[in-house]
Amino acid sequence: MLGKYLDEVRTKAPLVHNITNYVTVNDVANILLACGGSPIMSDEPRDVEDITSICGGLNINIGTLNKRSIKGMKLAGAKAQELGHVTLLDPVGAGASALRTNTASELMQMIRFTVIRGNISEIKAIALGSGTTKGVDADIADAVTEENLSDAVRFIKEFSAKTGSIIAVTGAIDLVADAERCFVIRNGRPEMGRITGTGCQLSGMMTAFVVANPDNALEAAAASVCAMGLAGEIGYSHLAPYEGNSTYRNRIIDAICNMDGACLDEGAKFEIL
Amino acid sequence: MLGKYLDEVRTKAPLVHNITNYVTVNDVANILLACGGSPIMSDEPRDVEDITSICGGLNINIGTLNKRSIKGMKLAGAKAQELGHVTLLDPVGAGASALRTNTASELMQMIRFTVIRGNISEIKAIALGSGTTKGVDADIADAVTEENLSDAVRFIKEFSAKTGSIIAVTGAIDLVADAERCFVIRNGRPEMGRITGTGCQLSGMMTAFVVANPDNALEAAAASVCAMGLAGEIGYSHLAPYEGNSTYRNRIIDAICNMDGACLDEGAKFEIL
Amino acid sequence: MLGKYLDEVRTKAPLVHNITNYVTVNDVANILLACGGSPIMSDEPRDVEDITSICGGLNINIGTLNKRSIKGMKLAGAKAQELGHVTLLDPVGAGASALRTNTASELMQMIRFTVIRGNISEIKAIALGSGTTKGVDADIADAVTEENLSDAVRFIKEFSAKTGSIIAVTGAIDLVADAERCFVIRNGRPEMGRITGTGCQLSGMMTAFVVANPDNALEAAAASVCAMGLAGEIGYSHLAPYEGNSTYRNRIIDAICNMDGACLDEGAKFEIL
Repeated sequence: MLGKYLDEVRTKAPLVHNITNYVTVNDVANILLACGGSPIMSDEPRDVEDITSICGGLNINIGTLNKRSIKGMKLAGAKAQELGHVTLLDPVGAGASALRTNTASELMQMIRFTVIRGNISEIKAIALGSGTTKGVDADIADAVTEENLSDAVRFIKEFSAKTGSIIAVTGAIDLVADAERCFVIRNGRPEMGRITGTGCQLSGMMTAFVVANPDNALEAAAASVCAMGLAGEIGYSHLAPYEGNSTYRNRIIDAICNMDGACLDEGAKFEIL
Repeated sequence: MLGKYLDEVRTKAPLVHNITNYVTVNDVANILLACGGSPIMSDEPRDVEDITSICGGLNINIGTLNKRSIKGMKLAGAKAQELGHVTLLDPVGAGASALRTNTASELMQMIRFTVIRGNISEIKAIALGSGTTKGVDADIADAVTEENLSDAVRFIKEFSAKTGSIIAVTGAIDLVADAERCFVIRNGRPEMGRITGTGCQLSGMMTAFVVANPDNALEAAAASVCAMGLAGEIGYSHLAPYEGNSTYRNRIIDAICNMDGACLDEGAKFEIL
Repeated sequence: MLGKYLDEVRTKAPLVHNITNYVTVNDVANILLACGGSPIMSDEPRDVEDITSICGGLNINIGTLNKRSIKGMKLAGAKAQELGHVTLLDPVGAGASALRTNTASELMQMIRFTVIRGNISEIKAIALGSGTTKGVDADIADAVTEENLSDAVRFIKEFSAKTGSIIAVTGAIDLVADAERCFVIRNGRPEMGRITGTGCQLSGMMTAFVVANPDNALEAAAASVCAMGLAGEIGYSHLAPYEGNSTYRNRIIDAICNMDGACLDEGAKFEIL
């Protein structure tokens, strides 16, 4: 069911403008190429409007944000919204510093993002608190588990209804929801948590999936999450005993590079709640 | 014939100052080390003159440019030119934004680059247009093919005559020319296009080749293009079916690391027009 | 004897704030995850105090420094010191430019670093000269060798006594000393010098080791040096003949990922002078 959304990425080769952190940017570029998209990076305020105009989607990731790049994020976001482009926010570290929490909040006030993707702590920080360095409400436990799943799904759907954005929360169990439906995804492996930037990579790839499938944004976003998790499973299966997180990083991108829609359909593990 | 230029890089270990984008900078550093050179990165205006002074060459790549790094490029370029160092311009994204096109243009007015290296669209943007976001003349088709080869060669030679720079255009067929002679190179594989930064890597490596071979700059530049393409062929031959663009990136740098002049002489595929 | 310090890192999972260069930052993050630590990167002055406050240690690396990040280093360093956190300085390129030498000097005047780690030229630049672009005294030869070992050990111990910091000098022979004792370490392989950023990676990992072992900072710092060198030996043993520096980079991080205390105890090669 979801495989066709990957095939569309390969057919359409969407151009994605990324304002993303310098830690994981190379892997973001390579995974976008692996899935069939085309990456461009630019964060200079005087450059971003031109660059985003020639793209189909904008991926804003606030890791290693700075005064200049925040200005770039705002200018690019406003331009992308004006042009009706797909926009994605990855609020890296929201809740960990006032600047990150506030920047995510300001961007969300300016731009109605097509998708917001983060880990559960980041999503809670932007949904429930703002302006505090660790403003995360403890009412929902930090990890999404089988036990608190229905509460988590309700929380994500409500946050989607409030923001008008698709909300993607990734972790051991991944949730991708709009106000009505939530994909609950059980692909992936725990070892992926020892690689820097799998979340950043997913945000880049997800933007490409949504750009290539404008009429099925929720399904496309969920497909990208399944693809990432499945790539984690496939990549892991090819690791030698002496290989670890650095080679695993390459293997995951490699698995995306070799994945097609049929493979994704066969390996995707999800239900819709 | 070209292998000796690689051997000279290993003998002389030229120090190359890189002002390059943060997307592919790690691979640029590793390929410089792989070919026998030594990389230094610095883009802060107050730092670049000191750094470039202790180097033999300067590689300016305008991907992810910003206001501060543009100032760094100009200061470093002026200093490198004053010292008679090798200078290379990689006009990443020229034609895609006004800032990139204009920055390339300003740098070319200030500095007579030893080499300008880009893809055909970028070279056309800086040769034929300026100040427009997509100012690429359609008289020459974007890709260099067997059909338009003689036109492309003439265009590159003329641009070299006009600028006084060696012009290197990379793609399915690579061209490296001065006003008189053009190396037409047919190494490489199409799968290299799915790796981010092979062009950036080549620019770094090409700078080292030219620094190490000051009396044969055209041949040295062509040798680096053959080496990159040949590394793409060798690296590809070692890929397992489940490996993709991320591992391929490593294998290409690995192939440079293991290449010597004899290997390059055996594998280089070029003619001179 | 040193293995337990690695085991402590895995048990405590220390959070390390890195202000580090954009060349090798991804590998720094992945090796921190590989050893059991947790990395955060932030260099924006308005962000660094919040971020460093939630961490246990701060790793300052001055490669690709700029005006903004220098301000970030100073604010983060002052806050980390105020909170009693572990602080590490990696003076990349000190001696190669006035800005780098002076920045290292200013940071050392503001902050009593727990550890200063560099190559011998960098350490000599900050110990013996300042403000000159190549202010390296020739009284001690640049490389630490068996012949000049006792002089080098004395120099490092004296610099430690003067600064109050543990001094770690890495090269063919590694030295890690306080005023009284010097670990002389003979792990590693010369091929590690052809990989960009093994020193930067070590600085990140060393910070995690010292954070996790507050009562044995010298031993913990030495343990991280042994671990890095041993990973270089293990990683090299798994390289195919056609593999080179780029794959080797992954293999070293992989070897850290798979290393435990018993393995480190078995492979560590050191004496205490």
